[in-house]
Amino acid sequence: MFKKTDETKVMRDPIHGYIHVDKQIVWDCINAKEMQRLRRIHQLGGDFQVYHTAEHSRFSHSLGVYEIVRRMVYEIDSLRMALSEYEKVCVMLAGLLHDIGHGPFSHAFEDISVFPHEEYTVKILMGDSEIHHLLASCKATLPNDVANIIAHKHERSCLNQIISGQLDADRMDYLLRDAYFTGTSYGKFDLERCLRTIRLQDDTIVVKQSGIHSIEDYIMARYHMYWQVYLHPVARSYEAMLSILFKRLKDVYRTNPKSLDRVGMFHAFLNGQPTIEDLFVMDEAACLYGFTLLQDCEDEILRDLSYRLLNRHLFEYVEYHSEKDIERIQAKVRAMGFDPMYYVYHDSVSQLPYSPYKESEKGVNIWVVDEAGEIIELSQVSEIVAAMTRADLKQDEKIYYPNDQVARAGRKKQ
Amino acid sequence: MFKKTDETKVMRDPIHGYIHVDKQIVWDCINAKEMQRLRRIHQLGGDFQVYHTAEHSRFSHSLGVYEIVRRMVYEIDSLRMALSEYEKVCVMLAGLLHDIGHGPFSHAFEDISVFPHEEYTVKILMGDSEIHHLLASCKATLPNDVANIIAHKHERSCLNQIISGQLDADRMDYLLRDAYFTGTSYGKFDLERCLRTIRLQDDTIVVKQSGIHSIEDYIMARYHMYWQVYLHPVARSYEAMLSILFKRLKDVYRTNPKSLDRVGMFHAFLNGQPTIEDLFVMDEAACLYGFTLLQDCEDEILRDLSYRLLNRHLFEYVEYHSEKDIERIQAKVRAMGFDPMYYVYHDSVSQLPYSPYKESEKGVNIWVVDEAGEIIELSQVSEIVAAMTRADLKQDEKIYYPNDQVARAGRKKQ
Amino acid sequence: MFKKTDETKVMRDPIHGYIHVDKQIVWDCINAKEMQRLRRIHQLGGDFQVYHTAEHSRFSHSLGVYEIVRRMVYEIDSLRMALSEYEKVCVMLAGLLHDIGHGPFSHAFEDISVFPHEEYTVKILMGDSEIHHLLASCKATLPNDVANIIAHKHERSCLNQIISGQLDADRMDYLLRDAYFTGTSYGKFDLERCLRTIRLQDDTIVVKQSGIHSIEDYIMARYHMYWQVYLHPVARSYEAMLSILFKRLKDVYRTNPKSLDRVGMFHAFLNGQPTIEDLFVMDEAACLYGFTLLQDCEDEILRDLSYRLLNRHLFEYVEYHSEKDIERIQAKVRAMGFDPMYYVYHDSVSQLPYSPYKESEKGVNIWVVDEAGEIIELSQVSEIVAAMTRADLKQDEKIYYPNDQVARAGRKKQ
Amino acid sequence: MFKKTDETKVMRDPIHGYIHVDKQIVWDCINAKEMQRLRRIHQLGGDFQVYHTAEHSRFSHSLGVYEIVRRMVYEIDSLRMALSEYEKVCVMLAGLLHDIGHGPFSHAFEDISVFPHEEYTVKILMGDSEIHHLLASCKATLPNDVANIIAHKHERSCLNQIISGQLDADRMDYLLRDAYFTGTSYGKFDLERCLRTIRLQDDTIVVKQSGIHSIEDYIMARYHMYWQVYLHPVARSYEAMLSILFKRLKDVYRTNPKSLDRVGMFHAFLNGQPTIEDLFVMDEAACLYGFTLLQDCEDEILRDLSYRLLNRHLFEYVEYHSEKDIERIQAKVRAMGFDPMYYVYHDSVSQLPYSPYKESEKGVNIWVVDEAGEIIELSQVSEIVAAMTRADLKQDEKIYYPNDQVARAGRKKQ
Repeated sequence: MFKKTDETKVMRDPIHGYIHVDKQIVWDCINAKEMQRLRRIHQLGGDFQVYHTAEHSRFSHSLGVYEIVRRMVYEIDSLRMALSEYEKVCVMLAGLLHDIGHGPFSHAFEDISVFPHEEYTVKILMGDSEIHHLLASCKATLPNDVANIIAHKHERSCLNQIISGQLDADRMDYLLRDAYFTGTSYGKFDLERCLRTIRLQDDTIVVKQSGIHSIEDYIMARYHMYWQVYLHPVARSYEAMLSILFKRLKDVYRTNPKSLDRVGMFHAFLNGQPTIEDLFVMDEAACLYGFTLLQDCEDEILRDLSYRLLNRHLFEYVEYHSEKDIERIQAKVRAMGFDPMYYVYHDSVSQLPYSPYKESEKGVNIWVVDEAGEIIELSQVSEIVAAMTRADLKQDEKIYYPNDQVARAGRKKQ
Repeated sequence: MFKKTDETKVMRDPIHGYIHVDKQIVWDCINAKEMQRLRRIHQLGGDFQVYHTAEHSRFSHSLGVYEIVRRMVYEIDSLRMALSEYEKVCVMLAGLLHDIGHGPFSHAFEDISVFPHEEYTVKILMGDSEIHHLLASCKATLPNDVANIIAHKHERSCLNQIISGQLDADRMDYLLRDAYFTGTSYGKFDLERCLRTIRLQDDTIVVKQSGIHSIEDYIMARYHMYWQVYLHPVARSYEAMLSILFKRLKDVYRTNPKSLDRVGMFHAFLNGQPTIEDLFVMDEAACLYGFTLLQDCEDEILRDLSYRLLNRHLFEYVEYHSEKDIERIQAKVRAMGFDPMYYVYHDSVSQLPYSPYKESEKGVNIWVVDEAGEIIELSQVSEIVAAMTRADLKQDEKIYYPNDQVARAGRKKQ
Repeated sequence: MFKKTDETKVMRDPIHGYIHVDKQIVWDCINAKEMQRLRRIHQLGGDFQVYHTAEHSRFSHSLGVYEIVRRMVYEIDSLRMALSEYEKVCVMLAGLLHDIGHGPFSHAFEDISVFPHEEYTVKILMGDSEIHHLLASCKATLPNDVANIIAHKHERSCLNQIISGQLDADRMDYLLRDAYFTGTSYGKFDLERCLRTIRLQDDTIVVKQSGIHSIEDYIMARYHMYWQVYLHPVARSYEAMLSILFKRLKDVYRTNPKSLDRVGMFHAFLNGQPTIEDLFVMDEAACLYGFTLLQDCEDEILRDLSYRLLNRHLFEYVEYHSEKDIERIQAKVRAMGFDPMYYVYHDSVSQLPYSPYKESEKGVNIWVVDEAGEIIELSQVSEIVAAMTRADLKQDEKIYYPNDQVARAGRKKQ
Repeated sequence: MFKKTDETKVMRDPIHGYIHVDKQIVWDCINAKEMQRLRRIHQLGGDFQVYHTAEHSRFSHSLGVYEIVRRMVYEIDSLRMALSEYEKVCVMLAGLLHDIGHGPFSHAFEDISVFPHEEYTVKILMGDSEIHHLLASCKATLPNDVANIIAHKHERSCLNQIISGQLDADRMDYLLRDAYFTGTSYGKFDLERCLRTIRLQDDTIVVKQSGIHSIEDYIMARYHMYWQVYLHPVARSYEAMLSILFKRLKDVYRTNPKSLDRVGMFHAFLNGQPTIEDLFVMDEAACLYGFTLLQDCEDEILRDLSYRLLNRHLFEYVEYHSEKDIERIQAKVRAMGFDPMYYVYHDSVSQLPYSPYKESEKGVNIWVVDEAGEIIELSQVSEIVAAMTRADLKQDEKIYYPNDQVARAGRKKQ
């Protein structure tokens, strides 16, 4: 059904050695403009402010997810046999395309993006996009089936699990990739061993009990990457400033839209009616150039924050214990001449290394098959994982604020 | 003389483990806006079009060069003892700052940048920049001494050699870094062994004859990186298209400047009077957003080329043997409806793995000290290197051109 | 006090880059015959039967431990300043020499070695050995001080901690080294980060709370290496067979010593009066050649077991649940014509990822220093580690036995 | 024709990730005693005296060669299609078994081994060995076909090329493996790229011209490994001492055989009639234990040399320029009380990075196929390789001798 490429195309990749493509539709999607745009969006948002080499894009991550899915559906015997060629291509495309709805700087952008990135992804897949036309001209049902897998509601639940679950191709790629590009070792786990350990049983992705150690290792890798990289307080400072800037943009747009004439890239979002074409044009280049222009705009807060973001004058932080801490910081900030409504940011994050079984989350749990062929939820089998789920939820609350006037001073000098 | 930081600052780096900073002036320069701007410029220009993970910036490379210089001046006994603290800091800063004059997309940008990047570097160091003020307020002579080392004309020739020569900290970092981020193994050589092999003799950086193998290995690494990465024909296609776009921009600006009103980021360069502040604002975000805007401009050629660049519709290529090939391609391109003046690009590159001794290039040669203490130029000692210099100069000439109308069609669809 | 080597000696090492030696006494000890003997003893006993590349020796591990100790005492500021030059050399030598009392195949050999390896180590350090004379001629107190540190009873408790504790140089080297040489990734943790996180406070080795993640990672690395490598059931099969062979050797020696005339290498141990010179001659070469000779001895059990060990005809295993399992296997083995007294082996292992605080084990715990300067035991601070210590103790009991006659048949064919 | 294993067996390997086995005959050969014996023979002879971690065995190298052959015959389309299943298994077995005739310490042992290792290999394959019976009971022609491939005289020349040529599976594995286990980076080249570049044309293994860089890189890797590892002067010192010891053994055996009664492991070789069973028993354990016994034998030279070998008291060396140097060293050695006939050793080595085309060596050259499908010898296409073959042959001549009495003194002390 699916046309083959002339020869297997390979793309060199530090994580997987090579990315292998031999379906024309996959190749065409890689070269579609919605995919190419992901080259202009960092995988790790503000993390390059902490780990200076974390400059890799969602594009290379997407290729990596595709490659893991490809290996799963062709190299794991039980999956290869259980899935039709059509299903294989669907889930590989879902891996490739799962991030196309993302805006710049990952989550912070959602503060003005109107729709969450999942919604954009569906709009792009089902709407008037290059990707949609490629998929639909291949087979009419393809856009919808790919969208369903990405939305975790395909009727064949193993396809959903491959793309989103607690042991999915997305996480497997990003842990390895983010570890490589940050230069940390925390995210490393044994992908080969994991792949050898996974199989399909009763339409569920399961892992063999004998391979449980590599899964435990993977869960620890996640745990450490969260605290060392994804939730690093300095990266969160950058993202806090982004959120504040976007909030201020909206407020200024309401009261004085003309003053934002020069930053046209933000208009559709501020208007509240962004199309997929507006999202397409909104990448990190647009955003950063927007900040460059905002450095000279009328509004002092926007001038200050855009200068800070471009030149890495990050907010400081203190631990949050109670509302008193916030009041104290608000007073401090006010004394420095800043408006606390924007210049004090309360950020709270928490992360569970592994979420144990809940009926409602059945589809995202990790399932183990023991030697008798019984399927059991991971935390019932692994003492280490069980212990982790019993650990107190680690919560981290911080207050971000500027403790210098350097940015403002910097601007004035010019 | 130089203030120390409170404690040694470290930044995680996949190539060097950590970047270590314990001088306040180094730390301040890293955080200066001219350095932070380098985060928005790719180290490898168009190479990420071939090696999708080659997305690292000149910023992280600059930190790497600094770190190698730091290790050289502190870990190589003869250097540590021969250089004053002031000279050590000068040459470390030269390593850190050697690339601050670069525009977006490395060399292609020089087609409209008016000045070469070396000239901008001097202007920034000596002019009214944040970096200049930091250096000058530390010591009045510092900007000039750093600039002289970068320009390879400091009176102490070993300082020049550390920054630019055939075995310098710049090349050592970029070979390793570019190999890591492309995922190739070609650029790998044994940095530890090289550093252990280098010493200072008669104010010249020399290598011990017993360590010559690691130097040969380094030269082969360079050779392979040139042909496999830096001069990869597909990366050159992207850069050819950039050159053509910039050429067309200049031509349109001459005849119809008003049609370029929206792309203000290019104006200063098209005017021919760019200041360092204009360069500062010109990073790859500005450039790429400029291309986004050009997709909708009046001029068809600009619309087409900017669409191609953003969405990776690259030019094809054939080998160039004689002018006949050019004529043939011109005819073909004309038949497709393209203007051959812009749509046929003749590109010629060549590269010597090692340039043997010339009196004029004495300062950039690699020098070996034998057991008797005699200093000899590398190709006199290494048979492999000598053989390479006798190899015929490898020249690679290609003609780049569009062989499809996909870009134009793509634009129309919208 | 301690003579320096002419120049710093370096030995290439895949784990540490280089091993650096600049004290003559360290260099001399490395070249002493008791150290060189460790080249003929595998680090991982029978593990090369599972991981075929786990062929590294205790010699290279010993160099690695030395190197980590060296880095600790020179690179961690608080340690460098708190320890005298004499103490530094003592603890580096303790790291280098901590394994010199080991016999072949690590623990299995202790079944006939009469003394445990710790006792041999003290005998060698304090007795008439090359090492002893080297140390004593350097300073009279040196043999005793080094022995005390290795025995964890030096009065300066931080020195003991560096060599043996739950976060010591020994474990740090072997986790990394064993991971490298088995080709697994389980044992990898971030040594650089750990070293940056360790300091001395109140004569106790502590870790900074901000670096706790790298310690958690190290503890998980240990946990996984135990179950994946050190306690791998197939490696334990090899070791079970070694234990049985040694037991049979002792039994035969009691009843028919003359039949063991040809295997002189075992006599001193069978006699029960081994000297350090006897141990010195007893390495894996001697042991394996002994097995070669035993293949042709009178006793059928020795012939069979030595053939099995040399040619990898390992025992099978089943899980042990109760004594009934043993009886069942005994019957099975008896039916095959084997003597159950030797051919059924019950093996029980367990391992705690981290042993929480007990007053008696204070010296081996891991201690954390929080921002207020308070010292707290690790499991009080790390939720993950606390959770692990609350996990049920994982016990693994197996019964090993031959389920084929291949070895016997193999012997007969000849 | 060939029975499959129940499931694909995998063995973890640091170079290849996993070794994959799914043919029962391959699995059985791996477990045959002649293969298991290779675990007791170091891959790199005396190199572990220089690179202390170079302790890997010929067993793991043999698995690695098998794995590369397996990948070649299944992953390179043109080979997979051109070879029958029988031929595939033959050449995989040839890769696995090519080293079974090796004695301890690689080449030095050939000084008393009577037959070269190639001859033993044939004897084992064709004689009364476990391997022979396994192969023959699988298919009668198998022993002979495997032997022919190893001897480079199979009628299907591509099979010979895969096992022995200038670009064969043997070299590809050992360069990577020896680099990994020595901890050097010299031997690294891009195996994946090489494999992607190889194909079969006209029954000849060729490489695509576009992949020539990875081949050049491989040839440089070989060149550097030769000078940095295989021909390292200190490793050669160890091997020189082995050669001398074996020579002395032969001389003593002629005049006083009774004095060698205790070292029975050498008798068959000294008798000049070794069988394959004698070779089987002769591994490095036997040899090293023999040296242990020789330390106490009558002959002073054997006592001294065996002591030196076991405890790393290596000979020194000077460069050889003319016979005068030998005479000078002979006088020096004589003055120290040593017999120059044994204690002065002239060693000469040379190595060409690549041997260009000779009609007689056609079968071992590297062949390139250009875009027109023409097959050309590598040095005609690669300027770098051509330059190397024109380089003067690097010859390295050294004289080895003892310059201390430490060994003798060491012995006396006991």
